[in-house]
Amino acid sequence: MTMIFALPGNEPFAQSLADELRLPTGSIESRSFPDHESYIRVESNVKDSDIIIVCSQHHPNEKLLPLLFTINALKEQGAKRVALVAPYLAYMRQDKIFKRGESITSKFYASLLSEHIDFLFTIDPHLHRFHSLSEIYSVPAYTVASAPAMAEYIKKTFEKILLIGTESESRQWVEEIADLAGCRYDILQKIRFGDEEVQISPPHIDDNEEVLLVDDIISSGATMIKVASLIRAASKNTRVHALAVHAVFDRASFEKVMTGLDSIATCNTIIHETNQVDLAPLLGPVIKENFIV
Amino acid sequence: MTMIFALPGNEPFAQSLADELRLPTGSIESRSFPDHESYIRVESNVKDSDIIIVCSQHHPNEKLLPLLFTINALKEQGAKRVALVAPYLAYMRQDKIFKRGESITSKFYASLLSEHIDFLFTIDPHLHRFHSLSEIYSVPAYTVASAPAMAEYIKKTFEKILLIGTESESRQWVEEIADLAGCRYDILQKIRFGDEEVQISPPHIDDNEEVLLVDDIISSGATMIKVASLIRAASKNTRVHALAVHAVFDRASFEKVMTGLDSIATCNTIIHETNQVDLAPLLGPVIKENFIV
Repeated sequence: MTMIFALPGNEPFAQSLADELRLPTGSIESRSFPDHESYIRVESNVKDSDIIIVCSQHHPNEKLLPLLFTINALKEQGAKRVALVAPYLAYMRQDKIFKRGESITSKFYASLLSEHIDFLFTIDPHLHRFHSLSEIYSVPAYTVASAPAMAEYIKKTFEKILLIGTESESRQWVEEIADLAGCRYDILQKIRFGDEEVQISPPHIDDNEEVLLVDDIISSGATMIKVASLIRAASKNTRVHALAVHAVFDRASFEKVMTGLDSIATCNTIIHETNQVDLAPLLGPVIKENFIV
Repeated sequence: MTMIFALPGNEPFAQSLADELRLPTGSIESRSFPDHESYIRVESNVKDSDIIIVCSQHHPNEKLLPLLFTINALKEQGAKRVALVAPYLAYMRQDKIFKRGESITSKFYASLLSEHIDFLFTIDPHLHRFHSLSEIYSVPAYTVASAPAMAEYIKKTFEKILLIGTESESRQWVEEIADLAGCRYDILQKIRFGDEEVQISPPHIDDNEEVLLVDDIISSGATMIKVASLIRAASKNTRVHALAVHAVFDRASFEKVMTGLDSIATCNTIIHETNQVDLAPLLGPVIKENFIV
């Protein structure tokens, strides 16, 4: 048997995944003492079961120990294999030593997680210098692309939309989404002067066309705000929206971005009020094929 | 050569230890990105050096990854052996399964740390069911007793003082401090009625005697506040002070305890404005004997 568990904050995603896979959810008692130590107790009977734990890795430092304690308790209770579903996978950005003495946190984090889990499933990890997760994760690691679900969202939400990728490296990804959604796309051309100054040439926008800025991560949102103001300067009635996979932003950044855009939508890899696109239905079949016996 | 490094917040203890051992301190660049991921860079040349890292384990979850990243970076840079100095050692309280399905966090945490460090030094760990750290730590682990330093503090601070241990298990420890400080001591007798109600019989207090409540950890401080009010009810001009090893309390608890007591002093195992007793001079010789070559 396979059971699905959610670390705190991951319940909606876990429930969606359980519905998709028609699997039972298990229950964990998880709390924090006043001194910030964690208490973890597995309440379900997991003997001889395979386990799927949903734990998105946003703000990863404080989440690691509760996750590892949970895995430990599950195994102590007789669970067989443990698959971590991390809809957002942390520590993918520091992928080389830029300055002597740095910890390549991505490699270390991956090797640490790999010691405690048996499988990893994630969505659109930030792969830059690494070409696949298998370069740093020693357990079977599967990634799912959000593009089809994002395209579905675009089709049902907008009439006439121009997708804009804000990073030149995102061309292939934005093109794929545009193809699936049947809409136009453009990639922002940034022209750098020295270290700081960046000039962005606004794209051509058709009459009655709205604009959707797409990115994998929305964090400070600074680029999106800048692009939106440029577009409005060129054609002031154009509505500018944003769609991202991972809602990494903190409260202050979110409020700032909200004032600069007409709408923001994200996928549910990190729980956030902008979540509009449920990715569990895309992840389910990949888990079914590779983990469920 | 041996060098001493401090994780953020541990600089005063590390400096005191460096002075005591006449060792150089090394430098780490440590910061947090807006998404709460850590960046760690070892700035000193550590090739072929033995390393002492001072990292108190209060609020342990958020501290673990930066500590492990630092150890990883030190080893990548050619450091030889790494000793963790954790003046306060976390996850010592859950030392057995009280209810089916619980993670014995103490054991798991100890085995995880043991995989990454070569030596452990700590002060008055909360040993209850475990008799020594070697039951859970697989690396050499040395503990130092704060009693002599606490006794010194008592001698230089109070004229005529009665030590009171608030826990019956603390008798031996309080007796030792009283012996070293040359003062009287008493242990609170708690009489339990059912689950909640506890009656505490106030101790006899001599004329002109002040009272010092001693404990290893000061957390909510609830017992101390209660005892102080009992003592004052019995003899209203008695001054009641507190002395603890580990200042675990959060801001709100601290402010509450402050209003109920005449003074609070703690050792510097967790950095706090009540720190009055420097334990680095007691720890230094133990490190020298067991780690420094």
